[in-house]
Amino acid sequence: MRALLASVRAEGRTALTAPEGKVVADAYGIVVPGEEVAADVEEAVACAARFGAPVVMKIVSPDISHKTDAGGVVVGVAGAADVRAAFHRIVENARAYDPEARIEGVQVQELLPAGQEVIVGAVTDPTFGKVVAFGLGGVLVEVLKDVTFRLAPVTADEAASMLDSIRAAEVLRGVRGARPVDRWALAEQIRRVSTLVTDFPGIAEVDLNPVIATPEGAVAADIRVILATGTPAPRRVYGKDEILSSMNRLMKPASVAVIGASGEQGKIGNSVMRNLVDGGFAGEIHPVNPKSDEILGRKAYRSITDVPGDVDVAVFAIPARFVASALEEVGRRGIPNAVLIPSGFAETGEHELQAELVAIGERYGTRLLGPNIYGYYSTWQELCATFCTPYDVKGGVALTSQSGGIGMAILGFARTTGTGVSAIVGLGNKSDVDEDDLLTYFAEDPHTECVAMHLEDLKDGRAFVAAARATVPKKPVVVLKAGRTAAGARAAGSHTGALAGDDAVYDDILRQAGVIRAPGLNEMLEYARSLPVLPAPRGDNIVIITGAGGSGVLLSDAVTDNGLSLMEMPEDLDASFKAFIPPFGASGNPVDITGGEPPSTYEATIRLGLEDPRVHALVLGYWHTIVTPPMVFAELTARVVAEFRARGVEKPVVASLAGDVEVEEACQYLFERGVVAYPYTTEKPVAALGAKYRWARAAGLLEVAAEDTHQH
Amino acid sequence: MRALLASVRAEGRTALTAPEGKVVADAYGIVVPGEEVAADVEEAVACAARFGAPVVMKIVSPDISHKTDAGGVVVGVAGAADVRAAFHRIVENARAYDPEARIEGVQVQELLPAGQEVIVGAVTDPTFGKVVAFGLGGVLVEVLKDVTFRLAPVTADEAASMLDSIRAAEVLRGVRGARPVDRWALAEQIRRVSTLVTDFPGIAEVDLNPVIATPEGAVAADIRVILATGTPAPRRVYGKDEILSSMNRLMKPASVAVIGASGEQGKIGNSVMRNLVDGGFAGEIHPVNPKSDEILGRKAYRSITDVPGDVDVAVFAIPARFVASALEEVGRRGIPNAVLIPSGFAETGEHELQAELVAIGERYGTRLLGPNIYGYYSTWQELCATFCTPYDVKGGVALTSQSGGIGMAILGFARTTGTGVSAIVGLGNKSDVDEDDLLTYFAEDPHTECVAMHLEDLKDGRAFVAAARATVPKKPVVVLKAGRTAAGARAAGSHTGALAGDDAVYDDILRQAGVIRAPGLNEMLEYARSLPVLPAPRGDNIVIITGAGGSGVLLSDAVTDNGLSLMEMPEDLDASFKAFIPPFGASGNPVDITGGEPPSTYEATIRLGLEDPRVHALVLGYWHTIVTPPMVFAELTARVVAEFRARGVEKPVVASLAGDVEVEEACQYLFERGVVAYPYTTEKPVAALGAKYRWARAAGLLEVAAEDTHQH
Repeated sequence: MRALLASVRAEGRTALTAPEGKVVADAYGIVVPGEEVAADVEEAVACAARFGAPVVMKIVSPDISHKTDAGGVVVGVAGAADVRAAFHRIVENARAYDPEARIEGVQVQELLPAGQEVIVGAVTDPTFGKVVAFGLGGVLVEVLKDVTFRLAPVTADEAASMLDSIRAAEVLRGVRGARPVDRWALAEQIRRVSTLVTDFPGIAEVDLNPVIATPEGAVAADIRVILATGTPAPRRVYGKDEILSSMNRLMKPASVAVIGASGEQGKIGNSVMRNLVDGGFAGEIHPVNPKSDEILGRKAYRSITDVPGDVDVAVFAIPARFVASALEEVGRRGIPNAVLIPSGFAETGEHELQAELVAIGERYGTRLLGPNIYGYYSTWQELCATFCTPYDVKGGVALTSQSGGIGMAILGFARTTGTGVSAIVGLGNKSDVDEDDLLTYFAEDPHTECVAMHLEDLKDGRAFVAAARATVPKKPVVVLKAGRTAAGARAAGSHTGALAGDDAVYDDILRQAGVIRAPGLNEMLEYARSLPVLPAPRGDNIVIITGAGGSGVLLSDAVTDNGLSLMEMPEDLDASFKAFIPPFGASGNPVDITGGEPPSTYEATIRLGLEDPRVHALVLGYWHTIVTPPMVFAELTARVVAEFRARGVEKPVVASLAGDVEVEEACQYLFERGVVAYPYTTEKPVAALGAKYRWARAAGLLEVAAEDTHQH
Repeated sequence: MRALLASVRAEGRTALTAPEGKVVADAYGIVVPGEEVAADVEEAVACAARFGAPVVMKIVSPDISHKTDAGGVVVGVAGAADVRAAFHRIVENARAYDPEARIEGVQVQELLPAGQEVIVGAVTDPTFGKVVAFGLGGVLVEVLKDVTFRLAPVTADEAASMLDSIRAAEVLRGVRGARPVDRWALAEQIRRVSTLVTDFPGIAEVDLNPVIATPEGAVAADIRVILATGTPAPRRVYGKDEILSSMNRLMKPASVAVIGASGEQGKIGNSVMRNLVDGGFAGEIHPVNPKSDEILGRKAYRSITDVPGDVDVAVFAIPARFVASALEEVGRRGIPNAVLIPSGFAETGEHELQAELVAIGERYGTRLLGPNIYGYYSTWQELCATFCTPYDVKGGVALTSQSGGIGMAILGFARTTGTGVSAIVGLGNKSDVDEDDLLTYFAEDPHTECVAMHLEDLKDGRAFVAAARATVPKKPVVVLKAGRTAAGARAAGSHTGALAGDDAVYDDILRQAGVIRAPGLNEMLEYARSLPVLPAPRGDNIVIITGAGGSGVLLSDAVTDNGLSLMEMPEDLDASFKAFIPPFGASGNPVDITGGEPPSTYEATIRLGLEDPRVHALVLGYWHTIVTPPMVFAELTARVVAEFRARGVEKPVVASLAGDVEVEEACQYLFERGVVAYPYTTEKPVAALGAKYRWARAAGLLEVAAEDTHQH
């Protein structure tokens, strides 16, 4: 293999020829049609017997180029007698066609069976590296882009899961009475391709297109292999302990220095100082400014070199052109973290200036947050190292954003909803510290119950996936990936490469990493607010209890839209619910308690839902009436839920409140008491529940539902 | 045809046999493979010549059942000489096979060409009646449900549009260098099927499955026809003038009677009276109550019969069991509208009680709103005929809801957002007055600029489509169709019938009617609030102007998600924008003015976007900074937009505000001044713009974009 690839490169080629592809396929056990040249009739019989299937037989002669014209091709020969006859006929025909021709033998090639065309391939993704792809073949894959991706290498189980992850998965399971294809044979083709590109990173792309999948096996009609040109530049990689050590000092510092601290209002260095001081940070705060002796009542130092003691974080609030020399001093002091607020680096085209910082950071092991950021909040430390306004509602959500504007939206949203936050971190240009570093920390941080990240790209997709996989079993990770729909104009030499454009690879691989992908900014914020409020569900049975039949219908729509399942109501439970509701009320789920019911009916039915161990989550639809005003509903719901939680019965409860403006206060009351509640929408509460379920499945707390492995 | 169908029914069958199907196909010019029996060789040659394509030839003999065994079948014969030879061979083989066999001739049948399999069909939808369907054939149509529907009959253009409305439309246009199929031949098959089921309503379902579409034509391999069993009961149909006459009196009454009016607090008849009186309704209000002489200072009458003068509306606030007799009196008095608040009818299983009301209403021509409703608001008349709280913010949105709970959500949402409303109407059980009646009125109502309807079903889908089509050119119609995802368990005898389940027919036909379908309750409310605020766009070129690069990326995603298109920035305009922004700012669209810019940069760039006639709509991304605080941005934006509107330059402008909580006030300020603005979300403002564009296209104000005809 190594020699083969080297020889291809030596010839200045990147694409392997068909015979070279066959060599690669054989080396990796990738099934392609068997073919051999039989010098005599008995060899031909033996070949055909080895293939054990109908074969195509062709004359092999350097002098006959139009084999069919020469009568030198017979298709679909099976059995020794027919192989013998065909061999003789072909040779005789060839002799008759050209008596001078040199005949080297007869090629015996397995006939491709009739079956379902699929495509199996691998590409080198700029973010995620080697990635395998699987989809249905034919023109539909091009038109409908029904393809799924996984990080290479994959296990046999992962490969098999790809068969279920395309929209047209049913086709492979056999429709209209057709027999299912051989899943494991097909999965094996995928697995072997993934192993090939993992073993040989120099292979950029592989295409098996089509692979013919049948109930008996999977054969690649064709293998196409393309070699990579160039290799990416290496960057310093920090181990988990190194990451945790510096992130711990970043998020829980004992001593913070502000380089460029200022006493002058309106300056960033002043805002940062004031926020640190006014925010109530209990650690040391050291202003650094060559022109001041004291800033905001703290002794100021000429240089970071003069600051006494161990410093955990140096916050930079100086113009871009002064950052590098100050960072050099920070590195020399052995300060583990530089928070680079200034802009004027890669985002304004100053790539070299940024590269200089990276080099300094790597040299000293100083981690760089930013540049081009608003700073960061670590609320449990009363730490506000930003030029924005302080935020002090402590809670379980850690949020990060690549963009400053989104950071401001996070702040405003958190403040108006009273969302409890453990950290808000600006990542900006991500010259060094990246989502995976922060995830590694947040996974261990006892204050953080949920992580929500806005990102436009990942510097190292594999490091992110590894960090996400380590985090998700402990707490949910929500990702808003911006730039979803940007046409991924990517040069690709293969079919698989073309299919891997746009957002498809991100989408599949983030899902595989167990991340909850938010479709938009508002959803990211709402999920972040809701997920820590809800306990984890213990099963799939959802019951809707509603006062408004109309809400019940819309809530059912939302349950289906979110891939959740309404419990099929057991007869005894149905009877128990019906005991509380008017005689004309319909049976089943949603439980429609009907509009004019008093608080006692809401309470009795909610109790029933929480009490019954077969019910795993409740969706409430409240209808504002004079009989049961909003705050009465909110109070009783919160009280009953709290009572059950005190008894150890923890089920997620979400509510949609339909009514006049008083429902807004009722929702806030409920949210603060562990019930995710929204006014004027049936969709949002169920979407939050859906996000919690997606996490619970990814965390292994629930069986993975079939829908969940699907692409759409 | 008529005789044929009658004979099928006479035999107690609903399914036509294949030869009967062929008769139907021929009668309607539906192309199926030609077939004729040739008694002699010259007839066979003539047949084959008529078909003008390769044929299959088969022996016709009552004594030969295994034609192939008898050598009695030849496939793919073309040209007179070959037809002659094949004829002779078939007859000779048959004679050799069975010398005693009676030979009646040779069947000459057109050979189905190789081509793309599609399915064409028609079903009888319970809501929309005769509907034609089109989709790709093969197993994928079953698995991916890639089908589109139209009301029958369709024109050739409508039929052709169906080819573009499936997700895999590209396949028909020719991919991988394949030639496109003959659009018009295929469209003609669809059109003819639609004419067939329209002409013969007794035909319930038609399936052409598959139709083979090629560059040269479209041939149905098979036609399956199923007859209907039973016919729906007729209901009284009102003409447009009748509808307008009664709806005008309902929505702009001079005199309202309240049957069951009460002076006792807590009674519905008291709430309704108080809301009418306190709401400031200027017309006459007549309480009817046999036990009172005066209610809320108004003279009360024992019966509606005693109320003097013309009464436009009788509002019922009495128990269900008394409604019929009171309605009889209302009808006899010639009162055109009965508003039936009471519940206890079809929704509680009392179908007969409701049918009795319908019969009374039809007898007297009294229109029934409800029963089982909260009542209705007609704000420009200061009319609140409900038991809820009054609402007095007059404006351009008319809202209806089938459910009381959703009605309350409408009220609360409108109040908290200050949405200007022309009417809110409860439809409840829809025993008579339906969405189409109200649409007919709202289309003409000068106060109504936008109609938003929550519905769970349509009593008469065709009447709704007609009303929507008449309304949409004047004003947008937003529909929230609940019960979208309920598995439509519908008995279906054909393939097309099975595909027409679930929500697919509603979705396609509502889109064809030009309706904007809201995916959820909150979207319906937000669209209703936003659409009257935005002027209609005059073209497709959208420009994003953003202070936050991160918002720009998310806003671009949202633009694509909503089927809108970012303007390709002309060089001169790009240069003009760049004159206002920092030198490192990126070119193109989004126009990223970068974060730290003063109000003057926002103002200059917004002016530029409004000024340039090539730009048709603006999406603004604001980033909260000290340099440009939220209210400063809001004030300058509203001022500039107003200035241009005063000059006749009306372009939709929407904004996403990222920042601390002050952005909420800024959004409200902007909304009230014609700019649709939302905090903490990049999706909502663009979704509102998308809804406006969908309407503008449906109303014929813009070219229909290719994406817009697509299904997903």
